Amino acid sequence: MGRIRRVTIADVADRARVSTTAVSKVLRNAYGVSPAMRERVRAAIDELGYRPHNAARAMRGRTFTIGVLLPHIKNPFFAEILDGLMEQLGGTDYQAIIVQGGRDDGAERRAIDALVDRQVDGILMVVPLSSKARLEEVAAGTPTVVLGPHERSAAYDSVHDDDETGAELVVRHLIGLGHRRIAHIAQQDAGRGRPAAMLHTIRERAYRRVMTEHGLAAEIAVAATAYTEDGGYRGARELLARDPRPTAVFAGADLAAFGALAALHEAGLAVPGDVSLAGYDNTRAAGLAHIALTTVDQDGAIMGRTAARLLLERVEGRTASVRFSVTPSLVVRRSTGPCRSVPA
Amino acid sequence: MGRIRRVTIADVADRARVSTTAVSKVLRNAYGVSPAMRERVRAAIDELGYRPHNAARAMRGRTFTIGVLLPHIKNPFFAEILDGLMEQLGGTDYQAIIVQGGRDDGAERRAIDALVDRQVDGILMVVPLSSKARLEEVAAGTPTVVLGPHERSAAYDSVHDDDETGAELVVRHLIGLGHRRIAHIAQQDAGRGRPAAMLHTIRERAYRRVMTEHGLAAEIAVAATAYTEDGGYRGARELLARDPRPTAVFAGADLAAFGALAALHEAGLAVPGDVSLAGYDNTRAAGLAHIALTTVDQDGAIMGRTAARLLLERVEGRTASVRFSVTPSLVVRRSTGPCRSVPA
Repeated sequence: MGRIRRVTIADVADRARVSTTAVSKVLRNAYGVSPAMRERVRAAIDELGYRPHNAARAMRGRTFTIGVLLPHIKNPFFAEILDGLMEQLGGTDYQAIIVQGGRDDGAERRAIDALVDRQVDGILMVVPLSSKARLEEVAAGTPTVVLGPHERSAAYDSVHDDDETGAELVVRHLIGLGHRRIAHIAQQDAGRGRPAAMLHTIRERAYRRVMTEHGLAAEIAVAATAYTEDGGYRGARELLARDPRPTAVFAGADLAAFGALAALHEAGLAVPGDVSLAGYDNTRAAGLAHIALTTVDQDGAIMGRTAARLLLERVEGRTASVRFSVTPSLVVRRSTGPCRSVPA
Repeated sequence: MGRIRRVTIADVADRARVSTTAVSKVLRNAYGVSPAMRERVRAAIDELGYRPHNAARAMRGRTFTIGVLLPHIKNPFFAEILDGLMEQLGGTDYQAIIVQGGRDDGAERRAIDALVDRQVDGILMVVPLSSKARLEEVAAGTPTVVLGPHERSAAYDSVHDDDETGAELVVRHLIGLGHRRIAHIAQQDAGRGRPAAMLHTIRERAYRRVMTEHGLAAEIAVAATAYTEDGGYRGARELLARDPRPTAVFAGADLAAFGALAALHEAGLAVPGDVSLAGYDNTRAAGLAHIALTTVDQDGAIMGRTAARLLLERVEGRTASVRFSVTPSLVVRRSTGPCRSVPA
């Protein structure tokens, strides 16, 4: 790797006859750069073959890298967040590198360490399992944005959906269709000591609250598995074994709803004829004609773009902490319909 | 980031009263380490809070990081490759970091640069668009394994599926069911000057060859879109507009088949009653009961595990180049059935 030619930002500034600060501004696509200046710096960069990532250490320790922690790469909603982030970084010289956190605290810790050790300029943590204390420890050394959990921190920015409202929209919709035996597929709590802040806990709590408010406390049925295809499949099988079986299932995430759909088909049940099904996330697949899943839209792309913007602001020196909350909306499709069963 | 305590491998060796070579062996989980030695080194690492990633630069430049280039994170087949890779790295101190290549050569080049600049110890490139010359340039500086393309190189290892055989299995299966108007959804060529080595070209070529061998050259119909959900949707719509329309569609990837399925449902066509549909990759979703897609299994987990093994061998000093080819098999499910239309 010693073979890479080391051109510095000073070389670029010399060639373009501008200050290194001006070069730095062009590199991060900052405001206040004239098109002519941008042109000149870009030309010098191309002529010299300057690579900002490589030379970054020479410049206030910047690496022009944003680290992203994802629990795994299978959830299509994470892909949408990532698309938003990449889009926002598109006009800059920042690159995103992604690590997979995995299922437990230890794997996530190693993945976060890998980002810190790679000296990324900022870290986006998507639905992390780590404790708030641990997140703040990371944020003390590296600008950090946390996407998912609702807790406030002075050390990092938060981007999240109003999960309380989103879940409420779904349950009210199902009740409005005449359903009473409405079951929920939740995620088993793997977070460290802060269930109240976790989005899956908030969705489940809202489900329980709305059911209770409508006199349906006795009908509450929760399968605590996981927000994955497999979790949805297992959760639905567990719920369908109940007697009488639910007439509607609210899965806390689209991915879990897809697994539940498989279980319903396997059981020979029609959707929504026998069982209505709703998800959460409005992933692209939810909109496909043969799935047509009723779900909650929380706009992952906007969340990803916002996270990138907040990170770059922190890299630029902002230290006051920001919270960004997306207001979700219900997207009604063909997977939910009127309750046809005789009330129990 | 200067706040991180710098414990070196020499500190660990001192504490454990072993050589630094022995510590290094334990770190990379190499052969020839006794359980007692492993125990002693691990204890010293824990006591001192040694973090190999962080201190790696002190040790022959190793960073204990494997870089993975993915075209995007949406294809579930890539997730399976990644699972295999992570599983293989699980017993070692290596971490994987992932970058997204995106749609064009330029974005991919920047993503690869980001990995090289992060000084990863090895790079796995999954279905890269870059030219062979470019891949060899990267491989000259960093141990490299390329997954997908079939070309031989002395500079890097290759892992691929026997795509010729896989595609042949699908087309013969459809012909055996009585289909004649068998159409194909292919990927438009975005590779640089080496179509013959690209897996999508090989699958399309095999489709054309088998059709021709069975006297069906006049029935060949190819929609060249992309191996994505959207590409499959557009490809199927294009093919269904033909008169007479095909009775079977072979999509070159499961993800494209899922998009095609949506187009078929939208058009009110039954699968396989009106149109048989087959994919390629045997992703998990292909096996779900409501999809039940006939497809080709090429075992992404084995490909990912093998890629990781080959990379670690190269990191250890192997320079001779290796090719690993997976023999695919046909998985017949309910999305393909006998042709019911009157021969044209």
